Amino acid sequence: MFRSCNRINFRFVSNSSQNVKKYKVSTGIGVALVSAGFLAGYVGSSITIAQNVPQFLFPSGSKTSLQDLRSPEYLDPRFALDKFKSRLLLIVQEQDLSFKKGDLDDHSFNNYTLHKPKDNERPYVIVYPRDTEHISQIMKLCYEFGVPVIPFAGGTSIEGQFISTRNINSDKECICEHQDTVTVMLDFNKYMNKVIQVNADDLDCIVQPGVIAKELNDEYLDKLGLMFGPDGAPGCEIGGQIGTSCSGTNAYRYGTMKENVVNVTAVMADGTIIKTRQRPKKSSNGYNLTGLFIGSEGTLGVVTEATVKLHVKPIHETISIVSFQDLNQATQLVQLLTKKGILGINAIELLDANMMKAINFSGQTSRSWKEQPTLLFKLGSHNKAILNEVINDIKKLSQETNCTSCEFAKTPEQQEELWSARKSIFWSSIDYGRHLFGPDVKIWSTDIAVPVSKLSTVIDDSLKEVTDAGLYGTVVGHVGDGNFHCLVMYNIQDEQKALEVIDNMTIRAIANEGTCSGEHGIGTSKRKFLTMELGQDTISVMRRIKMALDPARILNPDKLFKIDPADKKD
Amino acid sequence: MFRSCNRINFRFVSNSSQNVKKYKVSTGIGVALVSAGFLAGYVGSSITIAQNVPQFLFPSGSKTSLQDLRSPEYLDPRFALDKFKSRLLLIVQEQDLSFKKGDLDDHSFNNYTLHKPKDNERPYVIVYPRDTEHISQIMKLCYEFGVPVIPFAGGTSIEGQFISTRNINSDKECICEHQDTVTVMLDFNKYMNKVIQVNADDLDCIVQPGVIAKELNDEYLDKLGLMFGPDGAPGCEIGGQIGTSCSGTNAYRYGTMKENVVNVTAVMADGTIIKTRQRPKKSSNGYNLTGLFIGSEGTLGVVTEATVKLHVKPIHETISIVSFQDLNQATQLVQLLTKKGILGINAIELLDANMMKAINFSGQTSRSWKEQPTLLFKLGSHNKAILNEVINDIKKLSQETNCTSCEFAKTPEQQEELWSARKSIFWSSIDYGRHLFGPDVKIWSTDIAVPVSKLSTVIDDSLKEVTDAGLYGTVVGHVGDGNFHCLVMYNIQDEQKALEVIDNMTIRAIANEGTCSGEHGIGTSKRKFLTMELGQDTISVMRRIKMALDPARILNPDKLFKIDPADKKD
Repeated sequence: MFRSCNRINFRFVSNSSQNVKKYKVSTGIGVALVSAGFLAGYVGSSITIAQNVPQFLFPSGSKTSLQDLRSPEYLDPRFALDKFKSRLLLIVQEQDLSFKKGDLDDHSFNNYTLHKPKDNERPYVIVYPRDTEHISQIMKLCYEFGVPVIPFAGGTSIEGQFISTRNINSDKECICEHQDTVTVMLDFNKYMNKVIQVNADDLDCIVQPGVIAKELNDEYLDKLGLMFGPDGAPGCEIGGQIGTSCSGTNAYRYGTMKENVVNVTAVMADGTIIKTRQRPKKSSNGYNLTGLFIGSEGTLGVVTEATVKLHVKPIHETISIVSFQDLNQATQLVQLLTKKGILGINAIELLDANMMKAINFSGQTSRSWKEQPTLLFKLGSHNKAILNEVINDIKKLSQETNCTSCEFAKTPEQQEELWSARKSIFWSSIDYGRHLFGPDVKIWSTDIAVPVSKLSTVIDDSLKEVTDAGLYGTVVGHVGDGNFHCLVMYNIQDEQKALEVIDNMTIRAIANEGTCSGEHGIGTSKRKFLTMELGQDTISVMRRIKMALDPARILNPDKLFKIDPADKKD
Repeated sequence: MFRSCNRINFRFVSNSSQNVKKYKVSTGIGVALVSAGFLAGYVGSSITIAQNVPQFLFPSGSKTSLQDLRSPEYLDPRFALDKFKSRLLLIVQEQDLSFKKGDLDDHSFNNYTLHKPKDNERPYVIVYPRDTEHISQIMKLCYEFGVPVIPFAGGTSIEGQFISTRNINSDKECICEHQDTVTVMLDFNKYMNKVIQVNADDLDCIVQPGVIAKELNDEYLDKLGLMFGPDGAPGCEIGGQIGTSCSGTNAYRYGTMKENVVNVTAVMADGTIIKTRQRPKKSSNGYNLTGLFIGSEGTLGVVTEATVKLHVKPIHETISIVSFQDLNQATQLVQLLTKKGILGINAIELLDANMMKAINFSGQTSRSWKEQPTLLFKLGSHNKAILNEVINDIKKLSQETNCTSCEFAKTPEQQEELWSARKSIFWSSIDYGRHLFGPDVKIWSTDIAVPVSKLSTVIDDSLKEVTDAGLYGTVVGHVGDGNFHCLVMYNIQDEQKALEVIDNMTIRAIANEGTCSGEHGIGTSKRKFLTMELGQDTISVMRRIKMALDPARILNPDKLFKIDPADKKD
């Protein structure tokens, strides 16, 4: 017995020979039920109530809690796999798919994440689709057979976004204990990695999901004096950037993916192809479907094409580095600059004292640095005189906030040198971590964001907890956006301690009006924190949208929030 | 007989004494049906297929076409109105609601729109809710009784966004011919018009939907050197600005509502209260529900609170006015400035030759103007020297594009004077229209946006058609965004001609990769163009989301797209 909607309970008669259901009006109490009963009295027949569209075509209410659902029923490999494979081969040529273990492994995790899949969490097949229409055919097949589908672009996400959670022979701890099936992974890197059109006059360009953001800049936009704004991880591709709504160091000036996508073409769960809007810079034309796909981590549709905004590369640029006695002074300067509305600041990055210490220790840069909280600024303008004014303003305000030093690069070489500190943070942290904890040091990068006014407290409290736990943490922050990463280093035997301080950091962000994910997304690893941050009702509204657009739950299952009551993972 | 979903057809036995439905497997062909039959063979029982969640809890597929639906069943006043009213009075005090004809009329249209409601298209009652919790109680009641609800903020929208389409005694042309009911209008202006919190350090503030944007600036933000970005129609309120995703002259620099809302608190159709996210500047935390509410015109939920972004008011400002022989030169300058990435340009407005002529004729400004295509720039910076550099850059580039004149205001008085041209466009156009077509001249403002590269052609072609039809059109454009309004003036006897050129203008925008609505929204008047612009499948995905979140279709029915197969209006 289970609830189909608030109003009526179903009981199934397990008799395949007859196709009959028995009903009884629920004895449970609820507004909707009362309503049904109440209206029935007036419209003259409880059947009439049942005929109202939402009664049979949509569940009542505005949200779907996990308890409203039963587990999805995916393809059962024992019976249908051969048939599915033969049908797949009618759509996809042999050379455009792979069953090789190596390929399956390569599409299951990367070296930047601690959230490794279980041995059995592998796709069944990697498919290299040719175009949108091809993906539509594949989705129709997967929809027909109930086969989970995961889109794969750069494969750089670290929160378990592309783990094949639904698989054959899954062990009992697996999300998919309820049912084993197979997963199809759609890899855009063979065919769907093209820049289709650059509209320089309109500052936008049309790309496929497999385009590497850096290559878009280097090969297509640089020569036009243009750039794509969001700078994700090395190797990240635009499809994935849309999926996780990533941002990076440039977000302070150019915004996150939410502000940088004009439209997307997407294939829905049932194979329907839609384009969310055309190419005008702005529009007020109905639901913002573009925005809905950004950050949906492939759970609502497969994005097969996108028009993204372009920005003008500053002709004159420089780097500034400013150090402080304490972190609070640094964030005060950030707020001061922001509240002055100073133009030409393209990025504001924070490296804390621990990080500067690690960089010095590692010696990967050509100089040594003050081991103090340090701000790095990217400054730029089309006009040299304006850039000089910006430099003077920052000098002045830095001194007003009692900085201990304030440097500006005068040559491209000096720019390189100053920014080298920012570039070396990851490997410097690992070097120092090895020095402290030995060669097998573990490292994990947290990712939280809070209102800027709360940033220094949250960073200080977080670092204190890390230190008190006997671990070491270095901080890099996109402080203009209130977003920071703490690289927590520890010994394997301290893993439990580490996970605890890392979790507490996320909880601290949420308690300070912040978010559990500034730019890395949710995947499978932060679902519990997303619920903590937004509350069950908001998640249940998201789940309602998921169920409406992907009723069979085949699109990247189990990411962002739970879609299966049998899912026992956190 | 009707389709419940692709897989199974229902037949209802009209016998209220028994609560049994009979089923038969559809004989229709369809992927999903084939799938159901096919899988059944493997999983051993067609019942098992039917047990799969989407079978009973959600329709299959990813979209909902109008044909999938039956008409909604709203409260039938003949039977349930008294009961509903008495229940409403248990929640809302007498002084907080009004049945007065005058009030109902005041909440049904304004003087800026041609899209007047029919005489019978009036709300049943105006309710002045106290707070979010109060609205939740009201929504629960309306959900229980199936009563349509329309949120009302500034009442300045002009595309029929707040017409009570579902009413008692509607004539046969009315959208709601299928069923008459009553509409509840929620007016935020009595209680829910407060600025709750200004977070100057984080550049955001928390407001209720009844807050007038201008008053937020004048009374709360000015003194802090801050401002709210989007500048809508005079008297527009933030609730409505969120609903229509409006923008205005400042969008070039500060973005539209889509870029200016951090989070919303909303009451869903069933009374559930959700908050879409917390207050960090950026986040990648699941579906972008905030973005989904912006532009949804009250069809998905009632926004009861929002955190909006604030911007820094430039300390030093000026206005520039540049004239050209032809329109193409003007848009060339806009593209040149945009592609140079010149900082400090806060607005770029275009007034065409016809408009300048009307302004001169009307004599509402203190001077006369070149009757040529003219650009008006708002320039600003925190730093006087930077502003001067920007002025010089614009001078230089204006001359390069062969402007016929280029002026900059040197004093606040001169700024006033130059901007007065922009301010007087509406009444100047009417004056000139009266001169041309007599005192009863009609005027309508179109609202389309295209990629900037296509702007001059679209404007030229549109004006040519207006002139060829014997009408007069003046153009004001937010050209930095490719958005323009043509004020079309005509005699009542030429109304048909006028409507035709206005429709063709919208079709022209769509044909040029543009949108049927730059900033005024869709309401009831542009639904057919929205479908033309996005296609049936994209609309059907929007409809699926509407049905999922508001299955009883009580939230601002019939706006954006059709939700009722009996709806015969365009």
